[in-house]
Amino acid sequence: MRRADVWLTPGEIVPTELETRPVVVIDVLRASTTVVAALEAGARAVHPAVTVEEALRVAQAVGRDGVVLAGERRSLLIEGFDLGNSPREFVPDRVAGKLVVLTTTNGSAAMVQAMEAPTAFVAGLVNVGAVARALAQLDGDPVVLCAGRERGFALEDAVCAGVLLTRLAQATTPRWRLGDGAKAAVALARRFGATARMLAATEAGRQLQEVGLGEDIAVCAAMDRSVLVPVVRERQIVGRPEPVASAER
Amino acid sequence: MRRADVWLTPGEIVPTELETRPVVVIDVLRASTTVVAALEAGARAVHPAVTVEEALRVAQAVGRDGVVLAGERRSLLIEGFDLGNSPREFVPDRVAGKLVVLTTTNGSAAMVQAMEAPTAFVAGLVNVGAVARALAQLDGDPVVLCAGRERGFALEDAVCAGVLLTRLAQATTPRWRLGDGAKAAVALARRFGATARMLAATEAGRQLQEVGLGEDIAVCAAMDRSVLVPVVRERQIVGRPEPVASAER
Repeated sequence: MRRADVWLTPGEIVPTELETRPVVVIDVLRASTTVVAALEAGARAVHPAVTVEEALRVAQAVGRDGVVLAGERRSLLIEGFDLGNSPREFVPDRVAGKLVVLTTTNGSAAMVQAMEAPTAFVAGLVNVGAVARALAQLDGDPVVLCAGRERGFALEDAVCAGVLLTRLAQATTPRWRLGDGAKAAVALARRFGATARMLAATEAGRQLQEVGLGEDIAVCAAMDRSVLVPVVRERQIVGRPEPVASAER
Repeated sequence: MRRADVWLTPGEIVPTELETRPVVVIDVLRASTTVVAALEAGARAVHPAVTVEEALRVAQAVGRDGVVLAGERRSLLIEGFDLGNSPREFVPDRVAGKLVVLTTTNGSAAMVQAMEAPTAFVAGLVNVGAVARALAQLDGDPVVLCAGRERGFALEDAVCAGVLLTRLAQATTPRWRLGDGAKAAVALARRFGATARMLAATEAGRQLQEVGLGEDIAVCAAMDRSVLVPVVRERQIVGRPEPVASAER
């Protein structure tokens, strides 16, 4: 019997497990969705950075011309940056062929932590089915790392984790043993549903609406819009289209 | 509109909120249940200690005769201690008139953190109704601190938090605004139910059964068996029977 766990917040990470298990990072509002959008728009890779200073250092090292500096603090654009953290901004004209250096309040730090894992994917609702199918093809006992919100619990990330594990169970034959966090995530997905309305009622969803970014919510709620599987490679996140054989649903 | 939040793990504590809001600490398996049992059996107070060394220091300072040293590591008795962390052990013969110094893996540390709050109660399923009524009589926006399990999420604590908030809403007239963690807790309580069967299937419940302490589960599941409200006073936890006026349900 394979085992699946969910860390509902980054504070729950167990380092010895992070270093040995396949990890999926989830930050529905909005970093996961933005990573998918950036890679779909032709970005060469996404380099997650924990701090603004780190993002600036990476941009300088790579050469400012090949880089798009993106991210947010309190949902808003960072001074001197090219883009915020709205997935709507990541269009080919802005990011094709570039390295996107992304620093956000919660998601990019979780992505940096996931680099310690042997395999790490990035999932939002927009690509949850594709990531579930990619996980189903791996061995090992996956663990989902929810980015949460300012070190706290974010309902939308738990719901997405629950959808992911439900899809994973559907795509695999053995029964799964779920830890407490995973059981909770599956129950929350069933109870709340992965809808734009659910997202709008969360704390992160309310804050986006308060700062005039409510339109991002529908973009982040577009379930299975993409089959792209962002995967960590050498401290960057690159897009991996699904292998053809597994693209059937 | 009053606001209620739940920290599903101690890692989610926001210090500025802990210091200004009424706090309820929950560790269903087993520290909360043990605190209620100890105070009902006539213990003078419970002194939660984070480490074994701290517990021994307190016992020495107070005088070993007046103290019962209690607690667990990995669910088991600590060498040189009088009692473990099984609520069944806390009978009048062992604890009446004594100071119980309690150090457990999760619960006692959360209780020590809650001492920073202006008001802090301790709740398990055994006294959840009484604590809800005590909270209903307070002003302020309560926050529930789930002790969790080794810094991780524990389903039974979230379920108890959900029962507590459901009871609180029933006992008060204004509508409540719930944060993401509180919404999740209420949904989990509805989905899983606060039963011995739910407790037995959690990670903590399984571990208790593995070490032969499965009988504790029924004790910890005995909903509303007690009307005692453990409250933090001067770094110790004392029992406060419910005021008569509020004892009606």
